[in-house]
Amino acid sequence: MLYFDWTSTSPVSSEALKEYCKTSENYYGNPSSTHKAGLEAKAKLEECRRRFASVLKVQPANLYFTSGGTEADSIVIQSLLNNPSPGEILFTAVEHAAVLENKAILEKHGWKVTLLSCPEGYLSLDALKKALNPSVRMVCIMKVNNVTGTIMDTKEAVKIIRDYSAQVGKYIHIHCDAVQALGKIEFYPSEEGFDSAAFSSHKFSGPRGVGALWCSRTAVQSLSKAGGQESGLRGGTENLPAIAAMTLALENCIADLHCHYEYVTSLRKKIETCANDLGFKLLSPSSDSGKEYSPYILALSVRPIPSEVFLRVMSNKGFCLSAGSACSANTRGKAEQVLQAMGIRPEDRMSAIRISLSYLNTDEEVDKLCSALKETYKELNYGKI
Amino acid sequence: MLYFDWTSTSPVSSEALKEYCKTSENYYGNPSSTHKAGLEAKAKLEECRRRFASVLKVQPANLYFTSGGTEADSIVIQSLLNNPSPGEILFTAVEHAAVLENKAILEKHGWKVTLLSCPEGYLSLDALKKALNPSVRMVCIMKVNNVTGTIMDTKEAVKIIRDYSAQVGKYIHIHCDAVQALGKIEFYPSEEGFDSAAFSSHKFSGPRGVGALWCSRTAVQSLSKAGGQESGLRGGTENLPAIAAMTLALENCIADLHCHYEYVTSLRKKIETCANDLGFKLLSPSSDSGKEYSPYILALSVRPIPSEVFLRVMSNKGFCLSAGSACSANTRGKAEQVLQAMGIRPEDRMSAIRISLSYLNTDEEVDKLCSALKETYKELNYGKI
Repeated sequence: MLYFDWTSTSPVSSEALKEYCKTSENYYGNPSSTHKAGLEAKAKLEECRRRFASVLKVQPANLYFTSGGTEADSIVIQSLLNNPSPGEILFTAVEHAAVLENKAILEKHGWKVTLLSCPEGYLSLDALKKALNPSVRMVCIMKVNNVTGTIMDTKEAVKIIRDYSAQVGKYIHIHCDAVQALGKIEFYPSEEGFDSAAFSSHKFSGPRGVGALWCSRTAVQSLSKAGGQESGLRGGTENLPAIAAMTLALENCIADLHCHYEYVTSLRKKIETCANDLGFKLLSPSSDSGKEYSPYILALSVRPIPSEVFLRVMSNKGFCLSAGSACSANTRGKAEQVLQAMGIRPEDRMSAIRISLSYLNTDEEVDKLCSALKETYKELNYGKI
Repeated sequence: MLYFDWTSTSPVSSEALKEYCKTSENYYGNPSSTHKAGLEAKAKLEECRRRFASVLKVQPANLYFTSGGTEADSIVIQSLLNNPSPGEILFTAVEHAAVLENKAILEKHGWKVTLLSCPEGYLSLDALKKALNPSVRMVCIMKVNNVTGTIMDTKEAVKIIRDYSAQVGKYIHIHCDAVQALGKIEFYPSEEGFDSAAFSSHKFSGPRGVGALWCSRTAVQSLSKAGGQESGLRGGTENLPAIAAMTLALENCIADLHCHYEYVTSLRKKIETCANDLGFKLLSPSSDSGKEYSPYILALSVRPIPSEVFLRVMSNKGFCLSAGSACSANTRGKAEQVLQAMGIRPEDRMSAIRISLSYLNTDEEVDKLCSALKETYKELNYGKI
């Protein structure tokens, strides 16, 4: 199979898998136990925390290991339920479901949830300015959009929020879902001015079921501290083998980040050229648009072919692509909702496909992909290209 | 090292670890993706669900995979926050922190949280009867206590609750933390009359970071469905390699459950005899008490030696034991709180140690443990036994 769905999940790297097994065997104690096996596990856990934090250029004490990006987002957002009185939270309209789906519970508890307009996938700074008001307690801004790869100008957004905060004398917590950023582009949450950021291991060739939350604000309290692990922010026995494997996977990605970025950019350009030749509309920014985007994600419209039909034929030919975010394959509406929020027309939303890349994709694979895109389109579009 | 802390965490079995690796390599797609790699992963996921459910004798559709026991407990308990109006929840006073620590958030939202008295570790059915009132919406009763191994008479408790429910015409959800039960004693949550039950993989030689929630009541709604995975009850990409490894570990435990139980019972008897010879007070039920207990857990008081001192010396000799629950090693108060709720005197609580067993412990290891207990006690107690 030729895999072009790395944004959904990346197969775990063989180095990370080895580290998982080695840690399982050598550090089997519970890091909370005070006997030798426990202390050794604890030392390994803290070593991973220091290494992971060092990649992010943050304090290890502010880094918490979680069961994934979704949990990291939830801890921060649901911490609002600890507040004695409700206020308002702002989400960009194109956030991942891990963020957006917290809307219902917040609203049940009297919170106002406002979605910020993101034309073409970029947060409207005007919309942000207009939305800020004294009842806002938190703003969630994703770094890299998982459907189209647009990169938000978070520094400017943070500046606007901080200026407003200073003006009204109220702190506003700024959270960033950085799941599609880490390991692919340079991302330093503290330097960007965030208060917290969420990461997921299986998006950068680490194992599933593990992630991290960086959080500089002690104001964030989880709903239950359970066993008290991770400084009370995330209870449950620490998944040490997965944490060690994730940390190694991250370091491996970071070591060659620029080299991978350049290479993937060249692959994306090749596909973009092919898409242009076929008359596919780019739903991601074009490479000459001057806009910021991640080369790892490329969304196209294969209009008039419905994406499901196109993807099924591609899958039968051995290509793994997706219609949007995998999380929403069951409830297809979600990726479409994100595209709609970006201002994409219905006929293009219905025909949206997402090609997502890794430095592990070869040039030859991409050539095969381009040929298959052409062939499939021709087959399904009555021979017309 | 000689490991006697299986209740804190069990090292993953080599079969389970192999299954983890095999699944990582062969089923790398995201189960929510609709391409071939995704569909294969989805099929494997559903196969695991059927197999796990079959062990529990429940419907696969009612089994949800989680990141562990703590999360499974939280999903059920925190689902109460979806309720438009608060009511009352009853916890046995000896629940694990994964359950108990939800008290604060529930109280913040107007819920009344009542702890049910558990003399000697057994729920007082009288206390339960007295506590039941029309505002009660949920009752949490653990199956096997993690500090002393007492087994609750849950069938009788469930009957009392159901009778009361029928009388007042209001449904009461009954949740069971069965983390220390599964894989060690026969446990069928549906047959016991529960509405939901929580399980943790690393307590039965499966990998960390994964667990399960059985839940028959559609009334349970998680705070956020996030990506919609696990029927909206637990969002986040499914940790398929860990789920497959956990399922295999469970089947392996169950295959020899009775044989393991008999063997571990014999090990426990040996330690109990040794403890009696040394004049240690048993904090767990004695084998001739006629009470129900799990042979996998044995708590003792090494009075007058403080447990920390005793355990440090034992650790230096290569023995891994614990003072209570590992989760609370950082915040030592918790295991002590549970022992206090059981009516254990302060001097015995301060000297409590927990020996927890596996069928993988050999007779020879247990002999060494008994010698070391004797030797250590003699050393620390000025030669007096």
